Amino acid sequence: MRSDLAVLGATGLVGREIVSLLEERDFPLDDISFYASSSSAGNAMQFQGQVVEIEELNMKNISDHDIFLSSLPGEVSSEYLPRIRDKCSGVIIDNSSAFRMEPEIPLVVPEINSGDLEGDKRHIANPNCSTIQMVMVLKPLLDEFGIERVIASTYQSVSGSGAEALEALEDESRRALQGKEVEPGYYRHPIAFNLLPDIDYFHDDGFSQEEIKMRQETRKILHRDDLSVNCTCVRVPVKFGHAESVYLELSSSFSLSEVNELLERMPGVAVEDDPAEGVYPTPLTAEDSDKVFVGRMRRDRDNEQGLHLYIVADNIRKGAALNAVQIAEELLNEE
Amino acid sequence: MRSDLAVLGATGLVGREIVSLLEERDFPLDDISFYASSSSAGNAMQFQGQVVEIEELNMKNISDHDIFLSSLPGEVSSEYLPRIRDKCSGVIIDNSSAFRMEPEIPLVVPEINSGDLEGDKRHIANPNCSTIQMVMVLKPLLDEFGIERVIASTYQSVSGSGAEALEALEDESRRALQGKEVEPGYYRHPIAFNLLPDIDYFHDDGFSQEEIKMRQETRKILHRDDLSVNCTCVRVPVKFGHAESVYLELSSSFSLSEVNELLERMPGVAVEDDPAEGVYPTPLTAEDSDKVFVGRMRRDRDNEQGLHLYIVADNIRKGAALNAVQIAEELLNEE
Repeated sequence: MRSDLAVLGATGLVGREIVSLLEERDFPLDDISFYASSSSAGNAMQFQGQVVEIEELNMKNISDHDIFLSSLPGEVSSEYLPRIRDKCSGVIIDNSSAFRMEPEIPLVVPEINSGDLEGDKRHIANPNCSTIQMVMVLKPLLDEFGIERVIASTYQSVSGSGAEALEALEDESRRALQGKEVEPGYYRHPIAFNLLPDIDYFHDDGFSQEEIKMRQETRKILHRDDLSVNCTCVRVPVKFGHAESVYLELSSSFSLSEVNELLERMPGVAVEDDPAEGVYPTPLTAEDSDKVFVGRMRRDRDNEQGLHLYIVADNIRKGAALNAVQIAEELLNEE
Repeated sequence: MRSDLAVLGATGLVGREIVSLLEERDFPLDDISFYASSSSAGNAMQFQGQVVEIEELNMKNISDHDIFLSSLPGEVSSEYLPRIRDKCSGVIIDNSSAFRMEPEIPLVVPEINSGDLEGDKRHIANPNCSTIQMVMVLKPLLDEFGIERVIASTYQSVSGSGAEALEALEDESRRALQGKEVEPGYYRHPIAFNLLPDIDYFHDDGFSQEEIKMRQETRKILHRDDLSVNCTCVRVPVKFGHAESVYLELSSSFSLSEVNELLERMPGVAVEDDPAEGVYPTPLTAEDSDKVFVGRMRRDRDNEQGLHLYIVADNIRKGAALNAVQIAEELLNEE
């Protein structure tokens, strides 16, 4: 079936990527509407050769649609999405973190838990970018071997913070290359040629909320509330693409060739693993790709059931916009 | 006592840092000589207001000195250092990786195992940069609680590969900021705004030699040949300063305040740990400092004896030049 679709936050980094994916994937549409904040409203965006005016997002303005693809900031989401849910009859696919952990709201990566979409779901959450790429690799290993624990360190690109942060990275980098003093342009410290282990707010026990998101969302998506997941999240001076160094303790013995085969067969995952020949995932080569790339797979030298691997994906594609569009495609297929 | 000292490879990144540290620390010297490859020989360097000519490093040319502070590349070290050992009577402090794992050659971080310098040692190895900053944090925890295992992911700056790599990072970054195509200027892939999990050559089991160095050297320095140490080493687009996300499983129960106190008391280590206030180690703030900075300390949410922390140090200072100069100072103090 075809649908009437609205993109909320259409002018942001993720919103624009959603729009270009809808075009690229020839998403079955009857009609499309773009909503954004008052600063962008009145402008227009191209869609499939037509000019579409951007409407202002407010409750008076918004009309009903079959699907709302939302990439609004967290607070705006908290404010508007419940009201849209009340006023309209369509389904919301929500890229913000505001409702992800609410028990009645499914948190979905279509390749993994599309079953969670069953029933009359009016509000579906799109997981955190770092979580999505990690669970894509964990899922086939969990099913085959079981997983005892996950220890991950991330290398997260600046696009995860939006367009303004990307501009700051570029401005700071230019100044640094000119030998000028660099003031922080977006984060608390400069990010150009620097590393910040500081994503989202901090809990009393010392973990950042980004680290806790990876833990809680992984558990929810994999339906494993007891899974041990402990992360360290670091912002790095990369534009697009998150990397993750992941250590897994599997519940049963494995061979690397089995792991390789399972991951080769997993839809949406691509194995790049011949490091001696320079073949491994990198953010630059993953940019604009729909795949989650995995490489550097090796057995722990001390623990027979320990597996190290390295995961990279475009955080704006599979980590956000693509996954949201895939959820919309699932919904249409089910009907 | 005062000494006659030679700096081998005086014009490299580490060599220059050694020279500036000798000045800064008022190292007790009778005489200093600089040796470098033929391309630099004949030029001169300033030292304590005097002009010192750079001599060409070859066996005909080299004369005896009390201490040879060597930061020659690996292959040059393999070729020259044994011959210098034979021809001369002085002690070699060797920053290369060529001889680090030889049983009769001590591998020394002065704050940790200066006892290994005892006896008539003619050749002393300076450990790998990533190893040094990690063992500085492990040592007090090992002594107090015992350590069962170490899982580390590194974020290693480009200066670790030398001056040519730093230039490539800058050139590539400039081109990328101008929207031009970026060809790899030093590594196999571009490093500007990118990440490369590729440091040194690869072993058949998938680990890189850098990852194996961290394992083997940590064991040797801590005198714990059975310690489980498994690492993932990644090059990041940072100029100076390596970061490490480290997970430790301690052998006995601990409190975070005990850990904090132990690390505060460890000479050469500085705790920076108030992340909610933006206080944590970063490469930019660690640059040109002699300290190893540690922060983001927190207990694993599932394992009572699991401790996560984040370590940053200037890889050219404590990671290389400073540690070598400290070894020389130890030798003079012993006499």
